[in-house]
Amino acid sequence: MDKILHQPLGGNEMPRFGGIATMLRLPHLQSAEGLDAYNMATGAAPFDSMSVADIGDVAINTFNLLDAVRIIEEAYDEILEHNVIPMTMGGDHTITLPILRAIHKKHGKVGLVHIDAHADVNDHMFGEKIAHGTTFRRAVEEGLLDCDRVVQIGLRAQGYTAEDFNWSRKQGFRVVQAEECWHKSLAPLMAEVREKVGGGPVYLSFDIDGIDPAWAPGTGTPEIGGLTTIQAMEIIRGCQGLDLIGCDLVEVSPPYDTTGNTSLLGANLLYEMLCVLPGVARR
Amino acid sequence: MDKILHQPLGGNEMPRFGGIATMLRLPHLQSAEGLDAYNMATGAAPFDSMSVADIGDVAINTFNLLDAVRIIEEAYDEILEHNVIPMTMGGDHTITLPILRAIHKKHGKVGLVHIDAHADVNDHMFGEKIAHGTTFRRAVEEGLLDCDRVVQIGLRAQGYTAEDFNWSRKQGFRVVQAEECWHKSLAPLMAEVREKVGGGPVYLSFDIDGIDPAWAPGTGTPEIGGLTTIQAMEIIRGCQGLDLIGCDLVEVSPPYDTTGNTSLLGANLLYEMLCVLPGVARR
Amino acid sequence: MDKILHQPLGGNEMPRFGGIATMLRLPHLQSAEGLDAYNMATGAAPFDSMSVADIGDVAINTFNLLDAVRIIEEAYDEILEHNVIPMTMGGDHTITLPILRAIHKKHGKVGLVHIDAHADVNDHMFGEKIAHGTTFRRAVEEGLLDCDRVVQIGLRAQGYTAEDFNWSRKQGFRVVQAEECWHKSLAPLMAEVREKVGGGPVYLSFDIDGIDPAWAPGTGTPEIGGLTTIQAMEIIRGCQGLDLIGCDLVEVSPPYDTTGNTSLLGANLLYEMLCVLPGVARR
Amino acid sequence: MDKILHQPLGGNEMPRFGGIATMLRLPHLQSAEGLDAYNMATGAAPFDSMSVADIGDVAINTFNLLDAVRIIEEAYDEILEHNVIPMTMGGDHTITLPILRAIHKKHGKVGLVHIDAHADVNDHMFGEKIAHGTTFRRAVEEGLLDCDRVVQIGLRAQGYTAEDFNWSRKQGFRVVQAEECWHKSLAPLMAEVREKVGGGPVYLSFDIDGIDPAWAPGTGTPEIGGLTTIQAMEIIRGCQGLDLIGCDLVEVSPPYDTTGNTSLLGANLLYEMLCVLPGVARR
Amino acid sequence: MDKILHQPLGGNEMPRFGGIATMLRLPHLQSAEGLDAYNMATGAAPFDSMSVADIGDVAINTFNLLDAVRIIEEAYDEILEHNVIPMTMGGDHTITLPILRAIHKKHGKVGLVHIDAHADVNDHMFGEKIAHGTTFRRAVEEGLLDCDRVVQIGLRAQGYTAEDFNWSRKQGFRVVQAEECWHKSLAPLMAEVREKVGGGPVYLSFDIDGIDPAWAPGTGTPEIGGLTTIQAMEIIRGCQGLDLIGCDLVEVSPPYDTTGNTSLLGANLLYEMLCVLPGVARR
Amino acid sequence: MDKILHQPLGGNEMPRFGGIATMLRLPHLQSAEGLDAYNMATGAAPFDSMSVADIGDVAINTFNLLDAVRIIEEAYDEILEHNVIPMTMGGDHTITLPILRAIHKKHGKVGLVHIDAHADVNDHMFGEKIAHGTTFRRAVEEGLLDCDRVVQIGLRAQGYTAEDFNWSRKQGFRVVQAEECWHKSLAPLMAEVREKVGGGPVYLSFDIDGIDPAWAPGTGTPEIGGLTTIQAMEIIRGCQGLDLIGCDLVEVSPPYDTTGNTSLLGANLLYEMLCVLPGVARR
Repeated sequence: MDKILHQPLGGNEMPRFGGIATMLRLPHLQSAEGLDAYNMATGAAPFDSMSVADIGDVAINTFNLLDAVRIIEEAYDEILEHNVIPMTMGGDHTITLPILRAIHKKHGKVGLVHIDAHADVNDHMFGEKIAHGTTFRRAVEEGLLDCDRVVQIGLRAQGYTAEDFNWSRKQGFRVVQAEECWHKSLAPLMAEVREKVGGGPVYLSFDIDGIDPAWAPGTGTPEIGGLTTIQAMEIIRGCQGLDLIGCDLVEVSPPYDTTGNTSLLGANLLYEMLCVLPGVARR
Repeated sequence: MDKILHQPLGGNEMPRFGGIATMLRLPHLQSAEGLDAYNMATGAAPFDSMSVADIGDVAINTFNLLDAVRIIEEAYDEILEHNVIPMTMGGDHTITLPILRAIHKKHGKVGLVHIDAHADVNDHMFGEKIAHGTTFRRAVEEGLLDCDRVVQIGLRAQGYTAEDFNWSRKQGFRVVQAEECWHKSLAPLMAEVREKVGGGPVYLSFDIDGIDPAWAPGTGTPEIGGLTTIQAMEIIRGCQGLDLIGCDLVEVSPPYDTTGNTSLLGANLLYEMLCVLPGVARR
Repeated sequence: MDKILHQPLGGNEMPRFGGIATMLRLPHLQSAEGLDAYNMATGAAPFDSMSVADIGDVAINTFNLLDAVRIIEEAYDEILEHNVIPMTMGGDHTITLPILRAIHKKHGKVGLVHIDAHADVNDHMFGEKIAHGTTFRRAVEEGLLDCDRVVQIGLRAQGYTAEDFNWSRKQGFRVVQAEECWHKSLAPLMAEVREKVGGGPVYLSFDIDGIDPAWAPGTGTPEIGGLTTIQAMEIIRGCQGLDLIGCDLVEVSPPYDTTGNTSLLGANLLYEMLCVLPGVARR
Repeated sequence: MDKILHQPLGGNEMPRFGGIATMLRLPHLQSAEGLDAYNMATGAAPFDSMSVADIGDVAINTFNLLDAVRIIEEAYDEILEHNVIPMTMGGDHTITLPILRAIHKKHGKVGLVHIDAHADVNDHMFGEKIAHGTTFRRAVEEGLLDCDRVVQIGLRAQGYTAEDFNWSRKQGFRVVQAEECWHKSLAPLMAEVREKVGGGPVYLSFDIDGIDPAWAPGTGTPEIGGLTTIQAMEIIRGCQGLDLIGCDLVEVSPPYDTTGNTSLLGANLLYEMLCVLPGVARR
Repeated sequence: MDKILHQPLGGNEMPRFGGIATMLRLPHLQSAEGLDAYNMATGAAPFDSMSVADIGDVAINTFNLLDAVRIIEEAYDEILEHNVIPMTMGGDHTITLPILRAIHKKHGKVGLVHIDAHADVNDHMFGEKIAHGTTFRRAVEEGLLDCDRVVQIGLRAQGYTAEDFNWSRKQGFRVVQAEECWHKSLAPLMAEVREKVGGGPVYLSFDIDGIDPAWAPGTGTPEIGGLTTIQAMEIIRGCQGLDLIGCDLVEVSPPYDTTGNTSLLGANLLYEMLCVLPGVARR
Repeated sequence: MDKILHQPLGGNEMPRFGGIATMLRLPHLQSAEGLDAYNMATGAAPFDSMSVADIGDVAINTFNLLDAVRIIEEAYDEILEHNVIPMTMGGDHTITLPILRAIHKKHGKVGLVHIDAHADVNDHMFGEKIAHGTTFRRAVEEGLLDCDRVVQIGLRAQGYTAEDFNWSRKQGFRVVQAEECWHKSLAPLMAEVREKVGGGPVYLSFDIDGIDPAWAPGTGTPEIGGLTTIQAMEIIRGCQGLDLIGCDLVEVSPPYDTTGNTSLLGANLLYEMLCVLPGVARR
């Protein structure tokens, strides 16, 4: 039986301010036909190639972080039974840990492309082992990552010690501080990244605060001197050809997003991720 | 077969910031069980009494007002075939005309409870016969209203002539200017209103600008000296016992709703309307 | 020769978002015909009765407050030569002092209806004799006011001494603290006010912070527990019959007016003031 | 030795936009002299009567709610050793539970004046016993409250069952639903409240969402049809004469407070609370 | 007789927050003297070279798009009789069609420099032939453009088919997708553009959404990855030497312009356009 | 005796939304231990090298600019007696004049690195010699600057005459117009700057409007086409090695800073300035 190729609700079928609010205006339960969406820059035709849908929100426990982490892990265990590539919108960066745990059960150790202003490798925060700033230290300790195939891009901000980013380097990560990205295209960097993280399954985790506050003000810990939106697009487009088995876009915080443009940016970056998933046709 | 009693998605099942964004958090296509919502002031149990759902948006033509009006009328013709009580969220006040046209085909002339800062009985605007300020003059001319059973509440603002509100009065409408409402409960007024509009099917049309800008800033033509939210609730609760065959809440304009509280108010008023529909049980 | 009866630019002639931005959409240099604006509550027909126009802004010195005060006084000296009733939009409350000085040269001592959260009778601020909080003490000292014909309405907020409002009372002012206004119509108060301030020329000075922040958030020193917009309208409408020789509306601060509704309120109150000027016909 | 009577930093000593941002502009560690602040409506002279200071924030654990509750309780145990009356700014309503626990160790069971849109007597939320909606059920179960001396004012909103407010009533609480407060002064109600809760130590807990969103939009769960700011002032002023041993003002949420006026309101209500503490002189 | 060289109202004559709000602070009906405004980067002295004034808004029909288009065309027919170069501020991109129709009657086919995120060459939208996304297809079909002298710069966003931009290319347009502009000065591109569109009259149409949302958030259909403000200035400055016979700046949407900086940007770009009009002296 | 090395309040000791609001979260009167803050890009360890504290605000006279200037000068005279390097947050650019006067008494003529959209070398504004646009002309006339060691970076905007920036050049200043900075790193420029201004004490004055409105919208006179945040960081980091004897960051205007990110940017730039002060260790 043919798989159903869901299509985003077209702007000429329903005005853009109308219709159900879903990820990429995709159907929740209904199928739609006769519409394609193309990435005009890369020619990618994602909705022509795969069956994409919004499967709703995970009902977390908002009062207990550890329980929320448990709920997310169980939800992704269930999701991954269906052999899908999960694309997740956060939520703070804590959510990547339970997702990586579920991913590990299915795919084993994975490579990682991690865009962020912060390394998120603290040992603890206020005494807690699980928090949005400890995600990738826990992931390493739990053996979820293939450390030689990990890249962190966009790191900056003040640190508590001069060695803050060195923990990452000691694990074998390639750390690309923001200063290394200033004033240039990241297309050449991505050639190096593909070389580094290729050869196995890769997870893409994009913290919106990797991008400079001019483009992404709506986040909890903005840091100056960050990536441009164009560089963000170059990073994601530069992931084409990798064996992406999941991705997320985290730390968009609507109350701080006074113009709504951070949400718009997040939605667009998710669309760009969709366009580089394995199996997407290019016209 | 029993009808399905849909329930709003409970705040303890899914965090309030999660889940699909539907009217009153009602299902689009799925049923839910085990949850009731009660109006704590009146004891009304609407979801326990009737089958309520969000059936989505009408896909209007945003570039041609007359065509949009045609599309809306056809959509309501189809909706009303199912013997439902349509509750509509606007959109500007133009939409009430095609809804009343469809209502008229099914129910004949109807009474009207109309809350608004403006009478909306202009003959034309920029030469156009159909516009948000002409709705009720057209409705009268087309014979859609039982003019002796019409009440307009909250009228104020400057007028082009001293007779602006007199056209309404000449049709037999009861016009309650805002000044008549100042500093008091509208419960006594509503006894008079029920007397006036009862005895047949009644449509309730609520323009959010009937309410003062302190409570409803997010609208296109705010006018000072308006109703309070409490008075709005008294008006709606005072409609209990009427044979309501439809209602709308119009003129919420999100771009002007900088705190989001006008939308919140609109949603709450719609819920209050639901609680006074015929057949809703009280506990 | 007949005087020219300027009319506001009608919303059906030019969309409300278009046209030159003038006070009450009145002409700057051009006349217009065929349009009247009526106050639907009081029947006042101001544009049918008098020649009203926006004569532009006074070009103050923004770096030197005393010089700005001098410039304003000279501008009003010139304006008052034309036997007009100046209606002024501020600016902070400092501007009322030079206006009262110019008024005094023409009309002698005047009565005053002063709506405000603050008495503005400090002796000095940061050592300065002229500032927005000293206006009415200076006015008394300079003999500009007929102190037995002065009323201050809406006073509240914390004070530096328990006697803060007593200075006003010692001058013979009627002080109406906000608490005296709570939960009721001010129509009865205004009968008393007309009795107190009548019998001679009266100036009306309305500080928008007299109104509660729910209606007037866009001001520099908002104070809770203030007047409602409806009470403000009652105060102004209650001035009908007084010999008003000038009025102002001050302390609207656009940067703090995030919804624009404080500006809208200010414009409407100015319109209400226009409707009670001597000589305005009622239909 | 005389106690030090700290004074708020005066607006004529330091411009209001300058100086350290403390509660009521009180000193952190320094003393100040020669300034009093009077409540112009009630004549209360709080800074003339007692030693008031801002002792800073409790450093909670933001990732673990139960641990945060533990930290708060320990902090208040320490604070209460100094025989002070703690005035607390939240934070969500969860914080009242650890404060009441510490209060109980010192004062035993206390009466309660609780202003809120919600009863906060859920048994659990997302399976958690401790959360902002369960505070007062836990307080009852833990024997912290003298249930016959508890009043809840302003309750409204939808409920999950028609009996939602009945749990409170069964404990002996006086429940004043918002509808009981509409259109009138609450001074008479407060005479009843003083009768009900007097005769022992009383805690005052004010959830800003008890007030209507027109005045307090900056909160997480706004509900229409609430108290006015004036009624809030009447409630607090009506607590004069009670043996208040602590109070709080909770649920102000700055990200939703787009004009800053909810924060301003919260600060003013705290000042009103200060003015009714036992021992405050009136001039 | 010498033409009158109107000057913008100087910031040292009238504070920038005062005076009538006109385009570039130019007079409406009055002349001013003794002030020049120079472009400090290019030395252009526009107000020293030509007579510039704001001639007000076209009073469109807001309820009927086709009628609005008719009104605009007639207004420009009248304007162009005076041999002026019209500079227009929108309004959505629909307005360029009636302007081009009027331009065509006077100048014949014109070249076009079109900056935009979207090609605006749809055949129809919601079944309508005239809409903001069909402007340039209609212009081609009506023979208004010299297709070999048309350039579109900044195109991006998703498309309905992979061929979306190819329609433009088939007409002979030079299409410069946004990606071609990333990370570099557009001065070299503009040399190519002048070569392409020169040799006849040229119209310049600038949709503000051609610029990235970081600089121009206040628009209806923002798209990520766009031009920088600096590139926009390079494009306009690069038009110097062309025979510009009209220009517009469209799609600024104040309700979405929460900081006001999109309007500020639009005003500055219009000033830059003025500086490159034929006949402007350089010092 | 060892000097006390104050440390910023750590985000893991007190949540970032808690604690007293001081510059760089430094103590006001208390010392703290065990925490360092490193600049992750340059390795600078400012709090490990010097004693840094927030000494509060200068209590200016808000109603008299000349008196405010006098108060500031006296405050800095007193501050400089303690041999500190003052880092100042404005306030408008007027404050740099009294600071330079105090600096001059201690250090004699100084070099200047001045980042700004405007040269601030007007002779007068509205007839006043002291204003935010005249600061550096007054500083030259008063002999406060070593004119051969002055650089102005980022100048742009319209001018009243084509010679506006030439006055600076005539004094010997190096003027770097914004156009000279477009599309490139400013590291090479800063080598030239160090050459130009070195060899003596240097003051660094940073007007936030030197930066483009995309990054710094919250300021009074934003100008398009400005520096990027990254270039701002390059300028400040490029000042390392200079004998900086004071610095300021001026013209952040919170009412226009709708997202708060301009304030965040200002705080970060101040931190970057701290990192390049003489004597700061690098690890």
